[in-house]
Amino acid sequence: MPMLAIEQYQKHFLEYLQQQEIRRQPQNLYEPIDYILGLGGKRMRPVLTLMAAEIFDCDFRQALPAAMAVEVFHNFSLVHDDIMDDAPLRRGKETVHERWNLNAGILSGDAMLILAYQYFEQYRPEIFRDLAKLFSKTALEVCEGQQWDVDFETREDVTIPEYLKMIEYKTAVLVGAAMKMGAIIAETSEDQAQLIYDFGSNLGIAFQLQDDYLDVFGNPETFGKQIGGDIIENKKTYLYLKAMAFSDKAQTEQLRHLYSIQPSDNGDKIESVAAIFNATGASDATQQAIREYTMKAFDMLGRLQISEDKKATLKAFGEKLMERKV
Amino acid sequence: MPMLAIEQYQKHFLEYLQQQEIRRQPQNLYEPIDYILGLGGKRMRPVLTLMAAEIFDCDFRQALPAAMAVEVFHNFSLVHDDIMDDAPLRRGKETVHERWNLNAGILSGDAMLILAYQYFEQYRPEIFRDLAKLFSKTALEVCEGQQWDVDFETREDVTIPEYLKMIEYKTAVLVGAAMKMGAIIAETSEDQAQLIYDFGSNLGIAFQLQDDYLDVFGNPETFGKQIGGDIIENKKTYLYLKAMAFSDKAQTEQLRHLYSIQPSDNGDKIESVAAIFNATGASDATQQAIREYTMKAFDMLGRLQISEDKKATLKAFGEKLMERKV
Repeated sequence: MPMLAIEQYQKHFLEYLQQQEIRRQPQNLYEPIDYILGLGGKRMRPVLTLMAAEIFDCDFRQALPAAMAVEVFHNFSLVHDDIMDDAPLRRGKETVHERWNLNAGILSGDAMLILAYQYFEQYRPEIFRDLAKLFSKTALEVCEGQQWDVDFETREDVTIPEYLKMIEYKTAVLVGAAMKMGAIIAETSEDQAQLIYDFGSNLGIAFQLQDDYLDVFGNPETFGKQIGGDIIENKKTYLYLKAMAFSDKAQTEQLRHLYSIQPSDNGDKIESVAAIFNATGASDATQQAIREYTMKAFDMLGRLQISEDKKATLKAFGEKLMERKV
Repeated sequence: MPMLAIEQYQKHFLEYLQQQEIRRQPQNLYEPIDYILGLGGKRMRPVLTLMAAEIFDCDFRQALPAAMAVEVFHNFSLVHDDIMDDAPLRRGKETVHERWNLNAGILSGDAMLILAYQYFEQYRPEIFRDLAKLFSKTALEVCEGQQWDVDFETREDVTIPEYLKMIEYKTAVLVGAAMKMGAIIAETSEDQAQLIYDFGSNLGIAFQLQDDYLDVFGNPETFGKQIGGDIIENKKTYLYLKAMAFSDKAQTEQLRHLYSIQPSDNGDKIESVAAIFNATGASDATQQAIREYTMKAFDMLGRLQISEDKKATLKAFGEKLMERKV
């Protein structure tokens, strides 16, 4: 059976999402859940679960509950992270703790984490356990990644390997796990399941590094977020850490100074920092790292026991994701 | 095999708890978990899991991981509830969000909820699924109970059945589930598992009603919490709702007035409210309700297919719990 186009998986997932009875009692607990799940987004993670199931010859419909668990968990992490980051907006709309209050954000997030587990109950015991086990391991890593991210804000000695570990945990493991869930439902071998996990997690790291890059060098018309947001917040991204590693004494001092000020107009600051990122070679190094992690992901394809068609589909998906300029 | 004394189960559980490797990296995530789990308490819920396993002829050691899941979940709920209630102290020590900060409270709570699920991984798939399913259902009910409790603060029309439902969800279902987990591990019939759940949850409601009662009429020397705490916070407890139901017009007005003021010295307010609770018959009605729910719990014993010895043990446990004056 040929695979569907990504847009088709998105459509099927959205239909399934809209069928869920989220609005239960007490209303103040479930309304924020319904709200955040309805805010949109590309639904990339659940789509990957559906795709992975089909890659291993299992009807994507069987993977819908697991895909839903992934999406509900992702939204749980957004709600709690937005509280921790004190973020007023999410996808251009008010965040849950802004629209309701802190308590609603905490409690509806907690309920979402539990609801995610409940979606696995639709599978038989062996599959249920494998899914829930992978989910718990991944969810804990996401919490650890978030904690490292918080810790890094006040640390001056963050290393590149530490940073890579942080984005792996905070972002990439969920991409890998989303795909491995499809493999578990398709009852493929552990070896094949691990390969698709590694494909997903390496692509996840590449994706996050690209996010760092586009935050500075993306097209302001289409990026969707404010260009230079990370620089304004003095965030120690891959670009920053590489620039600090490559910079001469004058550049180091200038960068350190720029990352200590909070001017009312950030235009000059963003421009100066971007110039240092280019001059030190940090921009090139970041693009190089994006290519390397993408290649690492594609390397997994050779060892997957699936048709060449399906390998081409996965590769096309990865290339589409990595070609984005926005 | 004769059952152990409660103190013995406590001791075995504490030994198991202390063997757990909680302090992992990142330290800022796991330190608060280690801290809250070390604050003490009677460990009643995990002890009930161990006892229930033995009631159904299963070695309590097999139930230790599930007991740990129950205790970790209970502590998760304490950490997040303390944030929502803005509570500075827990068991006489600083709460997690006070000792660290809001982010630490949210994130370490999230991690505890996930860690609780991981303890079920030590059981085979069928048992794992039954435990995790019961756990998810219960955890979601606890969240719903907490939400009702928050909602009731700003509602003037809370009914007695609504209040009972709230304390059932917020407190009693976890007591029932803790016991049912022991039954699941012992692989008893669904019927027997449901009876021990009902025993636990009815005892849980009785226990919470007694907590309401002792908050006003307990012995200040031994109660452990400040006497009149609920009155100071204008909390609509069972006593209050019954008093409003039974009061004449003058008493209603007086009680409404007392629950609208926040004097700097609360002594008079507590005394006046307690007098109304007594005069209206609310105190007697509460004691009556405590007896009724305790009896409901004991009624389950007759239908349990266990030795008379074991029924006597459960009854003694219930009586000990309900006899407390503190």
